[in-house]
Amino acid sequence: MSLMRRRTKPPVGSRPGTLVIDSAAQAPTIRLMTYTNSDLAEHAVAGVDELQALIPAEGVSWIDVHGLGDLHTLETLGKLFSIHPLALEDVVHVPTRPKAEAYEHNLLIITRMIRVSGDCDVDSEQFSILVGSNYVLTLQEWDGDVLEPVRQRLRAGRGIIRSAGAGYLGYAILDTIVDAYYPVIEVVADRLEQMEERVMTDPSPKTLRELNRLKNVLIRIRRSVAPQREAVNSLVRDENDFLNDTTRLYLRDTYDHCVSSSEAVENSREFVNGLMNTYLTVISNRMNEVMKTLTILMSIFVPVTFMAGLYGMNFDSMPELHWKWSYPVLLLAMLMVAGGMLLYFRRLGWIGSRTRETDDG
Amino acid sequence: MSLMRRRTKPPVGSRPGTLVIDSAAQAPTIRLMTYTNSDLAEHAVAGVDELQALIPAEGVSWIDVHGLGDLHTLETLGKLFSIHPLALEDVVHVPTRPKAEAYEHNLLIITRMIRVSGDCDVDSEQFSILVGSNYVLTLQEWDGDVLEPVRQRLRAGRGIIRSAGAGYLGYAILDTIVDAYYPVIEVVADRLEQMEERVMTDPSPKTLRELNRLKNVLIRIRRSVAPQREAVNSLVRDENDFLNDTTRLYLRDTYDHCVSSSEAVENSREFVNGLMNTYLTVISNRMNEVMKTLTILMSIFVPVTFMAGLYGMNFDSMPELHWKWSYPVLLLAMLMVAGGMLLYFRRLGWIGSRTRETDDG
Amino acid sequence: MSLMRRRTKPPVGSRPGTLVIDSAAQAPTIRLMTYTNSDLAEHAVAGVDELQALIPAEGVSWIDVHGLGDLHTLETLGKLFSIHPLALEDVVHVPTRPKAEAYEHNLLIITRMIRVSGDCDVDSEQFSILVGSNYVLTLQEWDGDVLEPVRQRLRAGRGIIRSAGAGYLGYAILDTIVDAYYPVIEVVADRLEQMEERVMTDPSPKTLRELNRLKNVLIRIRRSVAPQREAVNSLVRDENDFLNDTTRLYLRDTYDHCVSSSEAVENSREFVNGLMNTYLTVISNRMNEVMKTLTILMSIFVPVTFMAGLYGMNFDSMPELHWKWSYPVLLLAMLMVAGGMLLYFRRLGWIGSRTRETDDG
Amino acid sequence: MSLMRRRTKPPVGSRPGTLVIDSAAQAPTIRLMTYTNSDLAEHAVAGVDELQALIPAEGVSWIDVHGLGDLHTLETLGKLFSIHPLALEDVVHVPTRPKAEAYEHNLLIITRMIRVSGDCDVDSEQFSILVGSNYVLTLQEWDGDVLEPVRQRLRAGRGIIRSAGAGYLGYAILDTIVDAYYPVIEVVADRLEQMEERVMTDPSPKTLRELNRLKNVLIRIRRSVAPQREAVNSLVRDENDFLNDTTRLYLRDTYDHCVSSSEAVENSREFVNGLMNTYLTVISNRMNEVMKTLTILMSIFVPVTFMAGLYGMNFDSMPELHWKWSYPVLLLAMLMVAGGMLLYFRRLGWIGSRTRETDDG
Amino acid sequence: MSLMRRRTKPPVGSRPGTLVIDSAAQAPTIRLMTYTNSDLAEHAVAGVDELQALIPAEGVSWIDVHGLGDLHTLETLGKLFSIHPLALEDVVHVPTRPKAEAYEHNLLIITRMIRVSGDCDVDSEQFSILVGSNYVLTLQEWDGDVLEPVRQRLRAGRGIIRSAGAGYLGYAILDTIVDAYYPVIEVVADRLEQMEERVMTDPSPKTLRELNRLKNVLIRIRRSVAPQREAVNSLVRDENDFLNDTTRLYLRDTYDHCVSSSEAVENSREFVNGLMNTYLTVISNRMNEVMKTLTILMSIFVPVTFMAGLYGMNFDSMPELHWKWSYPVLLLAMLMVAGGMLLYFRRLGWIGSRTRETDDG
Repeated sequence: MSLMRRRTKPPVGSRPGTLVIDSAAQAPTIRLMTYTNSDLAEHAVAGVDELQALIPAEGVSWIDVHGLGDLHTLETLGKLFSIHPLALEDVVHVPTRPKAEAYEHNLLIITRMIRVSGDCDVDSEQFSILVGSNYVLTLQEWDGDVLEPVRQRLRAGRGIIRSAGAGYLGYAILDTIVDAYYPVIEVVADRLEQMEERVMTDPSPKTLRELNRLKNVLIRIRRSVAPQREAVNSLVRDENDFLNDTTRLYLRDTYDHCVSSSEAVENSREFVNGLMNTYLTVISNRMNEVMKTLTILMSIFVPVTFMAGLYGMNFDSMPELHWKWSYPVLLLAMLMVAGGMLLYFRRLGWIGSRTRETDDG
Repeated sequence: MSLMRRRTKPPVGSRPGTLVIDSAAQAPTIRLMTYTNSDLAEHAVAGVDELQALIPAEGVSWIDVHGLGDLHTLETLGKLFSIHPLALEDVVHVPTRPKAEAYEHNLLIITRMIRVSGDCDVDSEQFSILVGSNYVLTLQEWDGDVLEPVRQRLRAGRGIIRSAGAGYLGYAILDTIVDAYYPVIEVVADRLEQMEERVMTDPSPKTLRELNRLKNVLIRIRRSVAPQREAVNSLVRDENDFLNDTTRLYLRDTYDHCVSSSEAVENSREFVNGLMNTYLTVISNRMNEVMKTLTILMSIFVPVTFMAGLYGMNFDSMPELHWKWSYPVLLLAMLMVAGGMLLYFRRLGWIGSRTRETDDG
Repeated sequence: MSLMRRRTKPPVGSRPGTLVIDSAAQAPTIRLMTYTNSDLAEHAVAGVDELQALIPAEGVSWIDVHGLGDLHTLETLGKLFSIHPLALEDVVHVPTRPKAEAYEHNLLIITRMIRVSGDCDVDSEQFSILVGSNYVLTLQEWDGDVLEPVRQRLRAGRGIIRSAGAGYLGYAILDTIVDAYYPVIEVVADRLEQMEERVMTDPSPKTLRELNRLKNVLIRIRRSVAPQREAVNSLVRDENDFLNDTTRLYLRDTYDHCVSSSEAVENSREFVNGLMNTYLTVISNRMNEVMKTLTILMSIFVPVTFMAGLYGMNFDSMPELHWKWSYPVLLLAMLMVAGGMLLYFRRLGWIGSRTRETDDG
Repeated sequence: MSLMRRRTKPPVGSRPGTLVIDSAAQAPTIRLMTYTNSDLAEHAVAGVDELQALIPAEGVSWIDVHGLGDLHTLETLGKLFSIHPLALEDVVHVPTRPKAEAYEHNLLIITRMIRVSGDCDVDSEQFSILVGSNYVLTLQEWDGDVLEPVRQRLRAGRGIIRSAGAGYLGYAILDTIVDAYYPVIEVVADRLEQMEERVMTDPSPKTLRELNRLKNVLIRIRRSVAPQREAVNSLVRDENDFLNDTTRLYLRDTYDHCVSSSEAVENSREFVNGLMNTYLTVISNRMNEVMKTLTILMSIFVPVTFMAGLYGMNFDSMPELHWKWSYPVLLLAMLMVAGGMLLYFRRLGWIGSRTRETDDG
Repeated sequence: MSLMRRRTKPPVGSRPGTLVIDSAAQAPTIRLMTYTNSDLAEHAVAGVDELQALIPAEGVSWIDVHGLGDLHTLETLGKLFSIHPLALEDVVHVPTRPKAEAYEHNLLIITRMIRVSGDCDVDSEQFSILVGSNYVLTLQEWDGDVLEPVRQRLRAGRGIIRSAGAGYLGYAILDTIVDAYYPVIEVVADRLEQMEERVMTDPSPKTLRELNRLKNVLIRIRRSVAPQREAVNSLVRDENDFLNDTTRLYLRDTYDHCVSSSEAVENSREFVNGLMNTYLTVISNRMNEVMKTLTILMSIFVPVTFMAGLYGMNFDSMPELHWKWSYPVLLLAMLMVAGGMLLYFRRLGWIGSRTRETDDG
């Protein structure tokens, strides 16, 4: 797990607006969806230079860019949609903190898309939304997203989404991304509930390592979800030219989902902290058991071993050695010492019913 | 215990307002109570389609729906009472975070009803209140609620409740639900006080597990109670068309109860954290006792065993072996070593009066 | 110690304003003090029905009710002084959270009176103040209060208190109650300072239990003091008809005392948490000492016991057994092994000057 | 260390403004400094009754009172400078929480003066400043202060201080007191840095006690510094008749120093908490070392002691006893067992290079 | 590591504005860069007295001072640029808390420049920026900074930086300094990720010491970064004469970087705290392993040693001693005891597959 993700960025001190392309970034592919109330067309755009010709004057266009790995594409998009240099920089130099900022020509929403990956790990990716008067431009880092349902609703052609303009489409995309947080948090929460049993029965370093890993996963989810809340709230609160009042009402719902997700992350974090404390306590308990076992064992054998040693001495004059019943009497005495010790420990509660209960526990 | 309750909801990205029925949800039954200052009628409504005919033009109607398991019912209610699609979604897609939101035609209050279940566990259920100009529509997930006293007051027919309109009825229902928090918290607090003794006398993993369970119960109660506070506060503070000033004055009292409940939960959480620390300390103390026992035992027997071993050696020339009083003198020396050790440990405070005090403690 | 005090209250869902009398509540006794600038009269009122006749039209009346155990008394007082049903409920259904609320006919101040009881424990009792235009009605749960100085000042007849009206009397009572917090906190703080030594010298479970008890006492004091601060602040800040500007200036001083008391409680809580950590550390240290003692003992005797065992073997051919100086040489070797071990442990710092320092510490 | 300092104050419930003189308070001495732009005079005032005659109509007077132990003096000062009874009470009944309050005739600033005392301990004393139109009255509890530099600047007669009026003098005094916080915090911080090494090398109870003591010293410093910040901020923010805009600009600087001091205290507290955790960890580590030593020792000697015991048995038929090479072979076997154990522990990392590293650590 | 850096400052109580030169401060060197849209000139200024002549009436001048060790230079700069005495004091008496304050003639920005030094340690240095109408005066404590890229952009002569005035240059410098925080935090974060493995495999005091060191480095970074955030925010929010709206828009971006840096520091601190807990747990686990080893060893050998001791006794009448098969039967019995113990511990899970897993962990 990486504690921090390096931000792609120009050398310290460069002119604001200088774009730097991360060499590992994916080459961009562009998909275009244009629709009016009645018609819808989809295009796989070969290159960014063809784009302008494809965008109709009427209706709404959704320009859907996957991959940030080409400077020319990004600069052309910047010019085409009058993106402010600072906004473009925020889009390209991932990761940017989620936020919403209104510029003169469009509204920039930076958000993060998270997905489960591998064994209960989480991938997160920056997703930028630019809402203009008649277009929505979205840019994501890698292929693969959670937006297929939005595309289906557009294609289905019924309902508000085809008629309500670019602002509503922007909202629908943002809402879909935020809705996708909850299932991811659930996967981690489920794993944590499974860990609860394991902490009690198998408090090994492996278990601790897994708890630590899940805790760090939760920290990373929080890092994506928490600033999102603030960003959506600013969209709900601050008027702008790109979202009308109805859409802002819907966003109130998106905000509620952000809050719920945030709380779910906090609850899970509280839960994992509780598990870690339990882990420590279980180890303490086990050590206590080990120590008791050792002490009981020594308490039984050390005195009788001493008694045996006593009569192994070679003094000339040890009258007991010559008595007839010495040996069986000594054996009896040893049994009594050992039994007395056992009774004493039972009275202290170290052995007997309570121990058994502890073993089950 | 489930860390998170899955929210019923449409597939990620669906149109807002799309309702999805949880297959495990209870089939709805509808009860109707209509009253004016002078008359009161109760109906068990067979189906949602009969409802409209039963609602009188005058007086207040309380439509009391138990169970959210039928799409047709919910959609019909939505149309009948002009419920905003987002409000209806919040009602149906449980759990929604408690909140209060004024729409054009009615006021939506989402709250949670909690009840003790089983062995000091807690069930919580979403309870939605829609307050209109002349009706209150309540929707709960399962049969069984805490509202019987409200119904009795309506039937008794005296007092403000019959004359003060739908807003007051909405307040009475909300207040009754909030009032029911305190007894539930008390049950958990009582159990915690009983645990206090057990932590001192029986610090077994079972005890720890019970503490953890109660802590998680408190976390779940808090999750219901805490957002409630905020929601009621917004009702007290923000004017709306459905609650008049007198009712808002009463709500101030409901708000105070929310705050008290919140504080009671926090106090209990603080208490359970204290118990967990005590648990750890008691275990440490016990380990200390075990170690002391072991050390005292070894300190007494190990030296004398060595002395016995010394005279078990078979050297030809060990003059002591042949002296007459060697054996009794050695026995005496052993007694003195053991006694000296005991005196030393008493001086260190490891045995004697203090130990006994510790056993009692 | 009780984690929560059950609130007397009507069954869940009753009409607001329904009064329920706690069966354990004390029967009320009423004392009346009426005064003008020149005269003062005191009456022990036999029953609430006589009260109205005793209250003069001029001057200020202080109706001082001890005990909340009679419904008729409370309802009559409610009518006599036009107490709002919600206000009366807050007075009767103890405990209510401290607060200040202005109603049409009077100002309600709910506060808590705390007193030391038994062995450094704390009793707390609800004290309600209703300030009207020419009267102050105070209601407390039990006989016995901290207000004797106020009565003396009234009787003494000099100074502002006789001339400044009901609002000033209300302030004087509230200020006296708040002033009484500090001495109670001091008693607990003193005990905590005594515990500091005991934690170092006698870290027994008894000590821990006492720390826990004091911590819970502090939590209960905080529960009384903290909301008081807020309540007094609202009196200072919000204008109302019952306190004039001069009185509000004096209340600023009362507010300062609330803040100081709150801070003193927080400081004591911080201190007790520190003591608990110290307790844990002292136990760890002691365990360490026990372990060292055991290890040193075993290190000295186990090797030499082995050496003795070696020459207790019965092999036919063990040449050492027959040498003349074997026995004294072996004894010397044993001494050297034991001495070497002791030197080694001194070098590790386990014994010697440092140990002694630790014993003193 | 005292957890709380008792406040001198009148019996609970006395009339506000009643002054009570602490019997331990120092008898007051009064010094007077009067100056105009051109002249400066200093007087040791014999008694408070002479004071009025000495104060000139023109210029600024600084009345500097050391000791609060005489009622007549304090009451006379109160009348002379029209001090509000509540203000006078705050001055006399130490300790009062630092604050700034504007009254009709003067501005009251309550502050605390702290000084290092003894072995890294801290004394704190209340210092009250009353700023009037043409005078500054300061009252402190004991002789000895940090204000000599202010007096020197006045005597030097150059610069703004002689010409800028009483408000500026009040600021200069307050600023000097706040500036004196930093060196005191530095003394504690230095000691903490010295403790860091000691925690690693000598984790004795003495060290813990010293850490606890320093932590409590920091708590007391914070108690003086933290409310100061608020008080100075209110002076910067709220306009009043006694400080002009220029002086308030200078106070912004004093406020910055308050913030810095607060942060330095918090940093030191964080550091001391870190040290305490380190302390616990070092003890755990040491216990681990002790346990390892014990286990290694027992692992080597217990098996070979058993082997020796085996051949010390007295059975008639033990053929090994009569073989010629039994004894040396057994010795060899013992060496191999012991050596094997040592190798096993080295493989586990319990002994060898890592142990040595740990010893150094 | 130093917990606090002493502030150079005049003796307590000096006149505000008194400058004190730290004797360890570097002697100042002055570099001047003057530019218009078309021309740029650079000068190494020999002495401060030559400066005035070199500053042109048109264009922007950047006066870049390295070293604060000369009173004459600082006072001359103060007069030349009409620096307010308090501002000059903040510049000279390092360290001053980062802040932004607008004065009549210029805008003072106090910031901190941090750099990695040595083995993952951090140096921090005060950097003061004074923005006037046509000049920027920067003062830093030591030679060496992160501003080379800004100088290159000026020399390159293209872009907004040459035409946008002094305010923009001030922004560019501040932004470059803030941008330099992130790489420093990354270096520490990288080291922490490396430590994660080491904590699991080598929990020695050396590891703990390194964790403590990194934690303190993070505390110091936070001390530089956190107040920066506030300072930049006040620049974004408050209008002033020296930064136009466009520049303030750019500063919003700088503010975002401050927030990101702050969060990165907090995340790292959370991570290091987690590592410390893991450290403690790993030690507990190891102790547990040691104890188990000891207990298993003793459990196997102590009983059989007792059996051997039993038959080493010298009683006359011990019939077993004379039976033929006694010896082999006893050996068998010993094997069975030892084997039974091993089976028992395997059943308890102390040895076997689980132990091996633990060794790997």
